[in-house]
Amino acid sequence: MYYVGIDLGGTNIAAGILDESLKIVKKGSVPTGNTRHYSDIIKDMAMLVIQLLKETGISKNEVDSIGIGGPGTCDRENGVLLYTNNIKFEDVPMRSEMQKYIPLQVYLENDANCAALGESMAGAARDVSDSITITLGTGIGGGIILNNKIYIGFNGMAGEIGHIVLNKQGEICTCGRKGCWEAYASATALIKQTRNAAQKYPESLINSLVNGDLNRIDAKTAFDAMRQGDSIGTSVVNEYIAYLGEGVSDLINIFQPSRIVIGGGISKEGDTILVPLREIARKSTYFGEGDVPHTQIVEAQLGNDAGIVGAAMLGRAAGLI
Amino acid sequence: MYYVGIDLGGTNIAAGILDESLKIVKKGSVPTGNTRHYSDIIKDMAMLVIQLLKETGISKNEVDSIGIGGPGTCDRENGVLLYTNNIKFEDVPMRSEMQKYIPLQVYLENDANCAALGESMAGAARDVSDSITITLGTGIGGGIILNNKIYIGFNGMAGEIGHIVLNKQGEICTCGRKGCWEAYASATALIKQTRNAAQKYPESLINSLVNGDLNRIDAKTAFDAMRQGDSIGTSVVNEYIAYLGEGVSDLINIFQPSRIVIGGGISKEGDTILVPLREIARKSTYFGEGDVPHTQIVEAQLGNDAGIVGAAMLGRAAGLI
Repeated sequence: MYYVGIDLGGTNIAAGILDESLKIVKKGSVPTGNTRHYSDIIKDMAMLVIQLLKETGISKNEVDSIGIGGPGTCDRENGVLLYTNNIKFEDVPMRSEMQKYIPLQVYLENDANCAALGESMAGAARDVSDSITITLGTGIGGGIILNNKIYIGFNGMAGEIGHIVLNKQGEICTCGRKGCWEAYASATALIKQTRNAAQKYPESLINSLVNGDLNRIDAKTAFDAMRQGDSIGTSVVNEYIAYLGEGVSDLINIFQPSRIVIGGGISKEGDTILVPLREIARKSTYFGEGDVPHTQIVEAQLGNDAGIVGAAMLGRAAGLI
Repeated sequence: MYYVGIDLGGTNIAAGILDESLKIVKKGSVPTGNTRHYSDIIKDMAMLVIQLLKETGISKNEVDSIGIGGPGTCDRENGVLLYTNNIKFEDVPMRSEMQKYIPLQVYLENDANCAALGESMAGAARDVSDSITITLGTGIGGGIILNNKIYIGFNGMAGEIGHIVLNKQGEICTCGRKGCWEAYASATALIKQTRNAAQKYPESLINSLVNGDLNRIDAKTAFDAMRQGDSIGTSVVNEYIAYLGEGVSDLINIFQPSRIVIGGGISKEGDTILVPLREIARKSTYFGEGDVPHTQIVEAQLGNDAGIVGAAMLGRAAGLI
């Protein structure tokens, strides 16, 4: 049997076919064209899948199900994408539209949850039954896996871990609250922090790394400056990791999961982030000095494929908590 | 069948016998004498249970099991209380000591988790399968119930919800971190906030309510002052509830539980707390305006009996998540 996963993003649609060992045997992507009508977008999703199947010589009969990870709020039961932020979808019948082209079972799930399920089933948390995957991107995406299943809460909306408050009177968050974790520890926040530092300290290496063009600053710039010995870059990174660590420590105090998986582009910094993060968590978690096993904090393993893999696995992980 | 629950506190040992309908048919308490050797304390626990059984004419054969809620860290498998704060217990074999007197199955659990299980099975959350009970006392105790079971994490330490940070550079917490929820929204914190206000504003009604003796301030004083129209008392209460609301909103964003149950003495203020708390949660939770059912925020129903009831139910809720 094979499993198809589709990761519907604001920019690209990525799809992949997984075999029984949860390896991606073939993947591909097409532009989302996110201003188009949903029927055109979903048709392209289906055509991409059909093409991948054709290229691999796998027939539809050999496919167990199709899973779709979407950037928003899902009605899982009816396969409807209720709302998304970066594609203008509202109450879009993903399942029935998709089934017009491919008559298979279609599952729908939030993309952050898909990434977490992917890491849980085939990535950095595949050997444990409970984990939280934190994706550092535009925001902070989170997926909570308990007993090998996605925890979605009684109303399907759980796991908005980016929206816990670290500074009651702090930065305004996109959600309307002040001081959310996401406003300090997302990639967007890091870029903003790096820009602010560059403006405040014109002599910083940050400025020369981008030839004085602050719009060229990305989530890697402060790390690069730090690696070249720049004290301002180092401060930005340290402050960023301190905030990242506060949220991670909160999650450990609440959940004590076997593993916390850090994903998103920033996670590629590896030990540069993980070593101080583990140190913060050790100091900041309750009974952190106790004689009990501690949550492991690790780097995501599936990269951009996590969403595809998790989406493909929705059928196997069905019967969510 | 009957179920025995024991709530081991720093001051008192309370015990109760529950019938099949989860009603307490008999309860009693004795002083803990918390400086004594554990064997004396556990003997008193057993004698209290034996006396209650005698008074009700219930034989040991009719008792399913004994559950003990203790103020600390438990090794559930071996029935050992590993560590407590307000009784000097370390690695105390609760189960085997208790079984010297009463040869029945003995379960052990953290007291905040017992209170949550009690409210979940027989109290304010008895009609839903998932809830979080927040006990506002010396600290903030928390118990997370998912699928009708206590969520304890992979190492048994989960649910330390009082130790999530609301102010990264804020008040020092007993856990060593800065700015924990507990440091702002426990009963202890409220008393401190009330005292500080009384000192800063000598004209406040708070001072006259305690005849100028700030040591007489308790968790009710600010509420009483507010009820009599005192603006300082009102500010203290509003600020307190604002902090309480931030933590509650965090928990909703993470868990989206069917119900959040507020327990501890302060919860007796009822709607005075609950109405503004619901308002804060409505505004501060993610997709709070969405067309999905919202977490209900309610007052605990079992009061001081929650610990007894939950402890008694440990056998029925066995096989924790």
